[in-house]
Amino acid sequence: MVVVMEVGASENQIEAVIEQLNNHGFDVHRSSGSRQTVLGAIGVRPEFDQRHIRLLDGVAEVHRVTEPYKFASRAWKKDNTIVTVKGVDIGGEEIVVMAGPCAIEDEEQIDKTAAHVAKNGATFLRGGAFKPRSSPYSFQGLGLPGLKMMRGAADRHGLRVITEAMDISQIEVVYEYADIIQIGARNMQNFPLLKELGKIDKPVLLKRGLMATIEEWLMSAEYVMAEGNLDVVLCERGIRTFEPSTRNTLDLSAIPVVKAKSHLPVIVDPSHGIGIRNKVVPMARAAIAAGADGLLIETHPDPESAKSDGPQSLYFDQYSELMRQIRLIARAVDRSVNSILVA
Amino acid sequence: MVVVMEVGASENQIEAVIEQLNNHGFDVHRSSGSRQTVLGAIGVRPEFDQRHIRLLDGVAEVHRVTEPYKFASRAWKKDNTIVTVKGVDIGGEEIVVMAGPCAIEDEEQIDKTAAHVAKNGATFLRGGAFKPRSSPYSFQGLGLPGLKMMRGAADRHGLRVITEAMDISQIEVVYEYADIIQIGARNMQNFPLLKELGKIDKPVLLKRGLMATIEEWLMSAEYVMAEGNLDVVLCERGIRTFEPSTRNTLDLSAIPVVKAKSHLPVIVDPSHGIGIRNKVVPMARAAIAAGADGLLIETHPDPESAKSDGPQSLYFDQYSELMRQIRLIARAVDRSVNSILVA
Amino acid sequence: MVVVMEVGASENQIEAVIEQLNNHGFDVHRSSGSRQTVLGAIGVRPEFDQRHIRLLDGVAEVHRVTEPYKFASRAWKKDNTIVTVKGVDIGGEEIVVMAGPCAIEDEEQIDKTAAHVAKNGATFLRGGAFKPRSSPYSFQGLGLPGLKMMRGAADRHGLRVITEAMDISQIEVVYEYADIIQIGARNMQNFPLLKELGKIDKPVLLKRGLMATIEEWLMSAEYVMAEGNLDVVLCERGIRTFEPSTRNTLDLSAIPVVKAKSHLPVIVDPSHGIGIRNKVVPMARAAIAAGADGLLIETHPDPESAKSDGPQSLYFDQYSELMRQIRLIARAVDRSVNSILVA
Amino acid sequence: MVVVMEVGASENQIEAVIEQLNNHGFDVHRSSGSRQTVLGAIGVRPEFDQRHIRLLDGVAEVHRVTEPYKFASRAWKKDNTIVTVKGVDIGGEEIVVMAGPCAIEDEEQIDKTAAHVAKNGATFLRGGAFKPRSSPYSFQGLGLPGLKMMRGAADRHGLRVITEAMDISQIEVVYEYADIIQIGARNMQNFPLLKELGKIDKPVLLKRGLMATIEEWLMSAEYVMAEGNLDVVLCERGIRTFEPSTRNTLDLSAIPVVKAKSHLPVIVDPSHGIGIRNKVVPMARAAIAAGADGLLIETHPDPESAKSDGPQSLYFDQYSELMRQIRLIARAVDRSVNSILVA
Repeated sequence: MVVVMEVGASENQIEAVIEQLNNHGFDVHRSSGSRQTVLGAIGVRPEFDQRHIRLLDGVAEVHRVTEPYKFASRAWKKDNTIVTVKGVDIGGEEIVVMAGPCAIEDEEQIDKTAAHVAKNGATFLRGGAFKPRSSPYSFQGLGLPGLKMMRGAADRHGLRVITEAMDISQIEVVYEYADIIQIGARNMQNFPLLKELGKIDKPVLLKRGLMATIEEWLMSAEYVMAEGNLDVVLCERGIRTFEPSTRNTLDLSAIPVVKAKSHLPVIVDPSHGIGIRNKVVPMARAAIAAGADGLLIETHPDPESAKSDGPQSLYFDQYSELMRQIRLIARAVDRSVNSILVA
Repeated sequence: MVVVMEVGASENQIEAVIEQLNNHGFDVHRSSGSRQTVLGAIGVRPEFDQRHIRLLDGVAEVHRVTEPYKFASRAWKKDNTIVTVKGVDIGGEEIVVMAGPCAIEDEEQIDKTAAHVAKNGATFLRGGAFKPRSSPYSFQGLGLPGLKMMRGAADRHGLRVITEAMDISQIEVVYEYADIIQIGARNMQNFPLLKELGKIDKPVLLKRGLMATIEEWLMSAEYVMAEGNLDVVLCERGIRTFEPSTRNTLDLSAIPVVKAKSHLPVIVDPSHGIGIRNKVVPMARAAIAAGADGLLIETHPDPESAKSDGPQSLYFDQYSELMRQIRLIARAVDRSVNSILVA
Repeated sequence: MVVVMEVGASENQIEAVIEQLNNHGFDVHRSSGSRQTVLGAIGVRPEFDQRHIRLLDGVAEVHRVTEPYKFASRAWKKDNTIVTVKGVDIGGEEIVVMAGPCAIEDEEQIDKTAAHVAKNGATFLRGGAFKPRSSPYSFQGLGLPGLKMMRGAADRHGLRVITEAMDISQIEVVYEYADIIQIGARNMQNFPLLKELGKIDKPVLLKRGLMATIEEWLMSAEYVMAEGNLDVVLCERGIRTFEPSTRNTLDLSAIPVVKAKSHLPVIVDPSHGIGIRNKVVPMARAAIAAGADGLLIETHPDPESAKSDGPQSLYFDQYSELMRQIRLIARAVDRSVNSILVA
Repeated sequence: MVVVMEVGASENQIEAVIEQLNNHGFDVHRSSGSRQTVLGAIGVRPEFDQRHIRLLDGVAEVHRVTEPYKFASRAWKKDNTIVTVKGVDIGGEEIVVMAGPCAIEDEEQIDKTAAHVAKNGATFLRGGAFKPRSSPYSFQGLGLPGLKMMRGAADRHGLRVITEAMDISQIEVVYEYADIIQIGARNMQNFPLLKELGKIDKPVLLKRGLMATIEEWLMSAEYVMAEGNLDVVLCERGIRTFEPSTRNTLDLSAIPVVKAKSHLPVIVDPSHGIGIRNKVVPMARAAIAAGADGLLIETHPDPESAKSDGPQSLYFDQYSELMRQIRLIARAVDRSVNSILVA
């Protein structure tokens, strides 16, 4: 922590600040210039509330020196983390595509989708069995029967399963059927849930909250990692801004920023941010061009009749065309798309 | 729902839209001007995803007509809701003050605080036993022992208890010790939690999420109310904006807006938004001047040594002086402050 | 400037940073702890682009120590600035009210308004002759004839005049008729305009831009002050946020923040932020309770027929009732409202 | 305009609204369902302030039907506008690159840069002679001598010139030396300036304001076009959000949105939004993948010693490598990069 004293702070004020810092367990290095004094407070106290110092007389500004997270930081681990799920690497050279419907609706829907995406560049099947909806009157998902349908479809077509758990009480059943457990944007700071996920031995995909800074997002990853589960995949899905034309603003600049601060893989969900399928396609392309490690994409055999988020689900042929473009863009950034080899 | 067709939309396009609306169960009233056609779709489908229609050929814009919430709306209940807790009305003519420390730390701290606020305008004791913290390394609260200390202190000084439940698993124990259960900003869209709170017979105080629009906030109240619990108190505590000088921006304009849209009481928590005690005082005054039904205020016998959010906690004498000013401002808006009569 | 080196930065990296800092003219104080080195760079270079240092190898973070503005800062001038306009003090103990229509429309309208507000607590007449409008098809103001009407009405009723200049070319004529020149939110960073205003000898009221941080707002005041005109009055009028229910979000927390950082007076324009007259009233009250030095309020003899912003203009009786409440709230914060004594 | 009456609005209220609409010159189509009445108000009044109707008794909501801009809209012109500058098409099949330093500093700097970018995919030389700077103490540009240097360098290397005018007084001289006149983000709503630019016969590049909605951006284009100058190129450069890790958030989702609403070309300036050169590269790639018609890129022969924005300027080799990647990505979206053929 660095404490900048006001121009003209008195010697008494400076000493009082040093004393307080010592009381809080910091070593203090004092550096006095002709106009101003700067105090360097050394110590490992990531949880220390700097406002205790900011409020003291004569203090102009206080800056944190160390990042508040440890396991999630690039300083702790220089090399990229690769999360391997049944032979597929997330965060490596190959781009990973997770595709499927917003919600699982019935056997036929999920099987058709699994068949299509398996043939077109995806290695994971996505789909919701428990759905967080803004309205209590909207479709809330099939629950356990949905999970079973999804697992069956994925297995038949050689795919891995990613699906969301919304509450601690759902972890057990989602754990049984999924290969990665997804945490939705609204739960990014549901700390009791994050702690529980830190105790399991399956990877967690952590979506960025609508309102979350990149630092807070990494702090939420830290909640999981601090409990022992280091397999966290980050997922950007749009932040809330003043712009009303889009549901949210997909923050692709978060990709290079996270890559610098953290070793964790980052994928992008373009479907929820932009909300209209024609606009999902360019943003998916842009995500790969910006350096994302993968995509989480919604596609549906019949979007018009989807029970949830149909308007942002791609038609099958749109999805296939997007995959063709993604392969070309991957090449421009010296990567390729991981695909199931169909004999 | 109102569907505005593009200038120059063809008769075929218009008829296709009408057919789709009929398929979705709407009655359609058509209104064709010289340049443009407007379709009024009448029907009670609050959960309908308008994007299904927006994507059809020839459609320019789609507007929702009815609010997506029912029980929370002023249309459903014209008169202000008054939530009565052990004889104290929230949402009536009198302003209600809920005061106490951020976190319960020990018997002495909570008792001293209860004694002070009971003598100075508060009717509720606030304090956290389960604390949501951005960092896994910060103090997480005393849990059950904290709840017991708080209940004891409140009872000794004639106060009611408000405290937070962070997870479904905590509802039972919080229910036992609290008079109002608080839902924090980060949990405003924790839908499983909201549903459970809808089934209990104690009031719920619902803080606005950092990123939540007023409509989403009312939708979250709807989640509670739709399950049968109509005693919801709303609490504004600041939204996230681009301004870095304050932690959050206290949105006092939300007060007149909510008062127009809903019949529920609205109180304000100025401590979390602004984050520095000297600036909490003017915002607390402003909240009452803007029409809030009450305040949720942090005060601590020794803020410097507080385990959580000390820098935003008022000193006891600051708190008392604030109460003096609040009484004067209440009078300017034809209200008064509910206080415990000390014989 | 404080430069925090990464944990594990090499001696070579540290020395390279010191060399660069020296090259840029800074004295460097080095402070090395067991894990990390912190460099204090002392020197008065407010315009230095810190990113030059942030990009060097081994640098973790760079923090600015001094504020980038000088004349606008509380450090430069401890006492509150009082801007005196024909005997009325802005920024002193008394609250100042500037009231009138959004746009000047005709002699009768402006005279009626001047008569009403002069009797009801205002000391300034506000009104636009040159109007910045988002649409090129909206009413753009009367121009010079409007200025003349306004000056006449103000003089007849003992009021001072405040009105906006939108462009350098309008300064001369506005200077002739106004007592304070207003700079609108959209022009807050029109630097050529600000520089010109720095050369005149009349006060400038500088509205905060919709998108401006408090620091940028003070930097814009600095543009005026650096040219020699120290009579700047700041005016908060709402910032843009994600909330769609209000036009903008009135940021009343800016008041205590600016009061701490700067010596300049701050008034509030509640009309533009909230945009609907019934909601203007509570926000005007809240502004005074939060510590504002005055109000800029829209009122119109016949808001329904106003050519600009009628829906946010108060009816005359609403305005008078608001003034009654403002006087009571002023008392709660140990102030009073400056009024014209009518014999 | 569509007026939605409240559930339970009385016949008197409905008739009063119809009367008001008629008074304002609208034809009204009434559509009454079992619960609610909806009024369609037909008429071409883009500047009408809907709040006049929203405030009437019994009105629930008012929605605008037509866009507030005309010439900028896709409805007015179905085909993409192509702005041709000395033989180079902006908005056609080929991607256009405009590259150069932030500010022109001296003959050598601008000539070296022109030579490098002309050989590497650029057809326009960018550079500032008049610089808008947040601080009055920062380098403000060379002015006229800078313009002359830039014109010379561009001519020697077969490039076109784009540079900024900050004020009406600068239009004449910028017009003389530039092929496109750039309007900066802070001037996006400087309406007097926009009107003047509408009267000239050279194209205008209009940057999006930091806090401007897409609709406001198009309204500003409308200001130029309504005066007769239809050659407007839009430029996305980042919006302000709550995220502090980046200067601004580059809103690439604006590209597909603008392409749907308007026929105007859209290019992207990734340098200002992200502010650090290593992160500019991925965002430039993403812009092309998202469908942008071109790029505005900062590069400098010696970024460390640049007088303005050096840290976001690319090194020459970074720039060349970026161009190589851009060509590959362009192919993925069936486009190519317009380049000067070097014999």
